[in-house]
Amino acid sequence: MPERRNRRVLLAARPQGEPKESDFRLVEDPVPEPGPGQILLRTLYLSLDPYMRGRMNAGPSYAPSVEVGQVMVGGTVSRVEAANVGPFRPGDIVEAYTGWEEYALCDGRGVRKLDPSLAPVTTALGVLGMPGMTAWTGLMNIGQPKAGETVVVAAASGAVGSVVGQLAKVKGCRAVGIAGGEDKCRYVVEELGLDACVDHRRADLAEALKPECPEGIDVYFENVGGPVFDAVLPLLNPFARVPVCGLIAHYNDSRPPDGPDRLPWLMMQILVKRLTLRGFIVSDFARQQADFLAEVGPLVRDGRIKYREHFIEGLENATRGLIGLLRGETFGKTIVRVAPEGRS
Amino acid sequence: MPERRNRRVLLAARPQGEPKESDFRLVEDPVPEPGPGQILLRTLYLSLDPYMRGRMNAGPSYAPSVEVGQVMVGGTVSRVEAANVGPFRPGDIVEAYTGWEEYALCDGRGVRKLDPSLAPVTTALGVLGMPGMTAWTGLMNIGQPKAGETVVVAAASGAVGSVVGQLAKVKGCRAVGIAGGEDKCRYVVEELGLDACVDHRRADLAEALKPECPEGIDVYFENVGGPVFDAVLPLLNPFARVPVCGLIAHYNDSRPPDGPDRLPWLMMQILVKRLTLRGFIVSDFARQQADFLAEVGPLVRDGRIKYREHFIEGLENATRGLIGLLRGETFGKTIVRVAPEGRS
Repeated sequence: MPERRNRRVLLAARPQGEPKESDFRLVEDPVPEPGPGQILLRTLYLSLDPYMRGRMNAGPSYAPSVEVGQVMVGGTVSRVEAANVGPFRPGDIVEAYTGWEEYALCDGRGVRKLDPSLAPVTTALGVLGMPGMTAWTGLMNIGQPKAGETVVVAAASGAVGSVVGQLAKVKGCRAVGIAGGEDKCRYVVEELGLDACVDHRRADLAEALKPECPEGIDVYFENVGGPVFDAVLPLLNPFARVPVCGLIAHYNDSRPPDGPDRLPWLMMQILVKRLTLRGFIVSDFARQQADFLAEVGPLVRDGRIKYREHFIEGLENATRGLIGLLRGETFGKTIVRVAPEGRS
Repeated sequence: MPERRNRRVLLAARPQGEPKESDFRLVEDPVPEPGPGQILLRTLYLSLDPYMRGRMNAGPSYAPSVEVGQVMVGGTVSRVEAANVGPFRPGDIVEAYTGWEEYALCDGRGVRKLDPSLAPVTTALGVLGMPGMTAWTGLMNIGQPKAGETVVVAAASGAVGSVVGQLAKVKGCRAVGIAGGEDKCRYVVEELGLDACVDHRRADLAEALKPECPEGIDVYFENVGGPVFDAVLPLLNPFARVPVCGLIAHYNDSRPPDGPDRLPWLMMQILVKRLTLRGFIVSDFARQQADFLAEVGPLVRDGRIKYREHFIEGLENATRGLIGLLRGETFGKTIVRVAPEGRS
């Protein structure tokens, strides 16, 4: 039997602006052997998420940077190949955080066993995983939507935004999405059931958004920044809440945009409208995972919250997948199929 | 007996940038006669406050603008001259909101009787009035300081800031003030008991502030904006809270400052540090007035919260007083003595 190889994607260079393929390097190493207390995982699915762009930068952020030469980080659904620590057994399907490689060793911490009979295991990377919980924790803890209010969500067809918009409907709100392109907007309204969706590529975004929010905006779930934020801000009602979850429009910025400097203007808007802007990441609310699954699990099972997955085939295509995701070219939760789910 | 005259200060023009004396007009009218259901008040003290600058502008804000030709608004301590509505009686000293005039009619709504034996009546315009309650509600509801945390307050010798800093000490925090000039900084440390105070006029404000906050900043009570905010922002800890109470540095802005545009950068800071920025005005928390007086009243009586008043003599000098206040030239709660407190 030939030695099994472990393909891995390393960060090769810190990107300037938009990442390019040469910022990554695909290498092959031997598949490692698990020592005492270790598990060997085979990656089945790798999640691609906008936050990964931030990890490629140096400098302080809410999580450590990936060092040049290190494996890119990422959430995975994996199969246990060998386990020298309980409660895991070979063949178990688990959620883990082992990154962009085909095989990985870990000690079992942060690894969660999945029950494939409850839901497709890929949902652990999307609607019932980190993105879905991001949507739920940000909307519930910070957005605090009340029935009858208007909730606007950016990247409304994406892994996080699609859950935000559907949850807003469940809570009795008017839900308005913003998404890139006609196909995504149609999906947001016709499939997800939001009240309206506006294409952020329109030059007249602000004018197009206004009639969809006839009573202003009470909650804006911020995933993107840039021109979308500029269109939303004038429509925010007094006491509006803005969970700041992501700013994908700015992740590739290598220098601040030209002036004038609108920082004082934003502060004045916060003051005179008594806005709440609050940044968060899902791990800030980690202790709420059971509550999240208890509320959202049944909504997914009953079809009241729908989801869409965008598959990329093979680890070697993960790089192009992330670049496309950051450009808004993917549609739905973006997942790399690293190995077939059935026993190989 | 000669007809009594009522001097009044009207808004004469909307200021461009810093207000000037010609933006106001002093007029004399007859003292009005109270009709049924009305009270005639004689203004003893008029409060001058930074928010007044905002009311001089056109356009939407959290409160209606003063129209050109109208009397400038403002809080007052007044004596009841005649009352055709209960429970008021001639000679009562009351807190009211009748603005920049020597006599005013009102219907009694929003008028609160004061007990001069409990505290000097001018405290109803300062430490036990709107500014003190602004400090308390913003710090308690939004700042939520915990013992051991670091609280930084701008305009630390002013009517609001001085209460914020002293309350932070009462709550067991490290309290660091920022104020304009050596005299004010000495007062903040030596009289008010804050741990440190940094002069915002220093060119090296950011460098001077840093060693005074060796464990970063957990709460920043924002009264000023501008370079003070710029110095504070890099020192904010993850999960810091920023009650946005005022932005005096920007009230005279007639156009946004030159670029680069730092709005996206501020949003990124909110995201990666999971900051909470929340604007408020004291009336948002009006129902907490009894709680405020119950906590802060005894602290003032026991000398644990000190205050300083800056008196301006005569309504004809109110205009110059407000201009000086906006320039940071006044020191302590700024009050116009409109008429002698003793019976005239």
